[in-house]
Amino acid sequence: MTRTIVASATKEIIVGFDQPFCVIGERINPTGRKKLAAEMQAGNFDTVIKDALEQVAAGATMLDVNAGVTSVNPNETEPGLLVQTMEIVQGLVDVPLAIDSSVTAAIEAALKVAKGRPLVNSVTGEEEKLEAILPLCAKYNVPVVAISNDETGISQDPDVRFAVAKKIVERAMDYGIKPHDIVVDPLVMPIGAIGSAGLQVFALIRRLREELKVNTTCGLSNISFGLPHRHGINAGFIPMVIGAGMTSAIMNPCRPQEMEAVRAANVLNGTDENCYNWIKTYRDYKPAEGGAHAAPAAAPASAAAGGGRRGGRAARVGGGAATE
Amino acid sequence: MTRTIVASATKEIIVGFDQPFCVIGERINPTGRKKLAAEMQAGNFDTVIKDALEQVAAGATMLDVNAGVTSVNPNETEPGLLVQTMEIVQGLVDVPLAIDSSVTAAIEAALKVAKGRPLVNSVTGEEEKLEAILPLCAKYNVPVVAISNDETGISQDPDVRFAVAKKIVERAMDYGIKPHDIVVDPLVMPIGAIGSAGLQVFALIRRLREELKVNTTCGLSNISFGLPHRHGINAGFIPMVIGAGMTSAIMNPCRPQEMEAVRAANVLNGTDENCYNWIKTYRDYKPAEGGAHAAPAAAPASAAAGGGRRGGRAARVGGGAATE
Repeated sequence: MTRTIVASATKEIIVGFDQPFCVIGERINPTGRKKLAAEMQAGNFDTVIKDALEQVAAGATMLDVNAGVTSVNPNETEPGLLVQTMEIVQGLVDVPLAIDSSVTAAIEAALKVAKGRPLVNSVTGEEEKLEAILPLCAKYNVPVVAISNDETGISQDPDVRFAVAKKIVERAMDYGIKPHDIVVDPLVMPIGAIGSAGLQVFALIRRLREELKVNTTCGLSNISFGLPHRHGINAGFIPMVIGAGMTSAIMNPCRPQEMEAVRAANVLNGTDENCYNWIKTYRDYKPAEGGAHAAPAAAPASAAAGGGRRGGRAARVGGGAATE
Repeated sequence: MTRTIVASATKEIIVGFDQPFCVIGERINPTGRKKLAAEMQAGNFDTVIKDALEQVAAGATMLDVNAGVTSVNPNETEPGLLVQTMEIVQGLVDVPLAIDSSVTAAIEAALKVAKGRPLVNSVTGEEEKLEAILPLCAKYNVPVVAISNDETGISQDPDVRFAVAKKIVERAMDYGIKPHDIVVDPLVMPIGAIGSAGLQVFALIRRLREELKVNTTCGLSNISFGLPHRHGINAGFIPMVIGAGMTSAIMNPCRPQEMEAVRAANVLNGTDENCYNWIKTYRDYKPAEGGAHAAPAAAPASAAAGGGRRGGRAARVGGGAATE
């Protein structure tokens, strides 16, 4: 069974097919957040601290930490800032961290100060990346996210994306890194632009799981880019990727609808034993929804009569489905 | 490609792997609804009419019609009442109907008056049922729901449930009924009682699709029986069964959370072309949710920067995941 182990100073997490879905909180990332970038550059970590605490409170399994505040001379500024951010975050929360940078020197600097066993985010199939990042992962004995693109960009052909992932896994083995320490990101395209993006990624996840036997992750909210009511698309996507075999995602845990989908999929995927986490979270749940089409008052009684251990049509086999 | 065709007098619907999920409205069913049963027995169809209109307005693809008001002498009362209910419903809405009864005489009486091509709900693997229902389906050339239990009850072993389904499909062929006119219900157990109920049914749906090449359905809300916040479990279950290959469900379309999950899964499954239905439904969606963990105001800007055609990590490959 594939098990990717990540850890903070005090807490170990297993990412695996038989484990609850690993939610990697994406908020500590100044990419596209000008205000946060300016704050971090000015040495103000108030938002970082707030994002760290809120994400863990909301149920994040891990936190991604990115300090890419500028595209101008990142090699100079990013290593120091990433180290500073890592130290603040790991002093504050006990979840494992993902070291997220496109700057090799920043990744190495963060690896030196990271407690436990962080996840490196990321390597790609580009030669330059492979040669820079894989030796570091081997040296520090840490797992790495492998993004399935290379010098030619992101292929629209899922077979090519699979081949890139396979190349990274094989190359990692040359460095002594086992497949269970590679977490492949098959790359999620926006469904609004590419109608087959969902089917593509579900098929890729299954192949990655069955053929390469690796854990997988993705930048989850990309799927809904450009569509209205993105949370609804994201919340539908989560159970589908979990059903296909995805084991983690880089996402915003501070979104109740998405986290509810994660918790439900864990129940349905058999990784929330005795529905413990679901019941604990929603025991006293009061629905906010309702609207024009809410069901009439007869519903609860019929739900109780219709369901049950024999599967809901027990009352009259061949007859009425349970109505709720 | 498997295509089950159902029709009303004026509207034809295809149930199939490449089609939008078929939502069979379950509300017109007095099982466990004492008030509705009493009304129908008294010749009052107000609730039936309301349920028919509301379910179609909420997006039901088909309506299930059940008139099982009593377990005392159903053979005497049910045929007439089912015919009456069918005639009222098909005079009111234009969606295809499912004739839902455990009384053979009621099914035959309803088949005589049904317009278009109704679905018969249901046959099981019980010899008596097979011999009663399959000849009727052959005579009227209509598709039928095949529930995978038999004289021995509902097996906890998915292989046995598959074998029962296979037996029904083979027996139907003896009567000249093609597999594309059999819609198998693999039987959904409550996940709160049987922790493997989800994994069991996903595996069964895949086998039914790949090996028997049949469409599938289920009494959807059974999965969440006994758990708090059932809509959340149901809404997570829907994308997972659709991802596994299920093509219809008997469910309550008047539940916004469940229908949102159906619509999202259609988008992600590639059966909502150009996201037309999603955009039409949610173009002006105003989220009701929020709560303590809602993301800060910086989110929309970062979502726009992070997503896009190249998959969201385009800005700095190997760097920041899109935050939202």
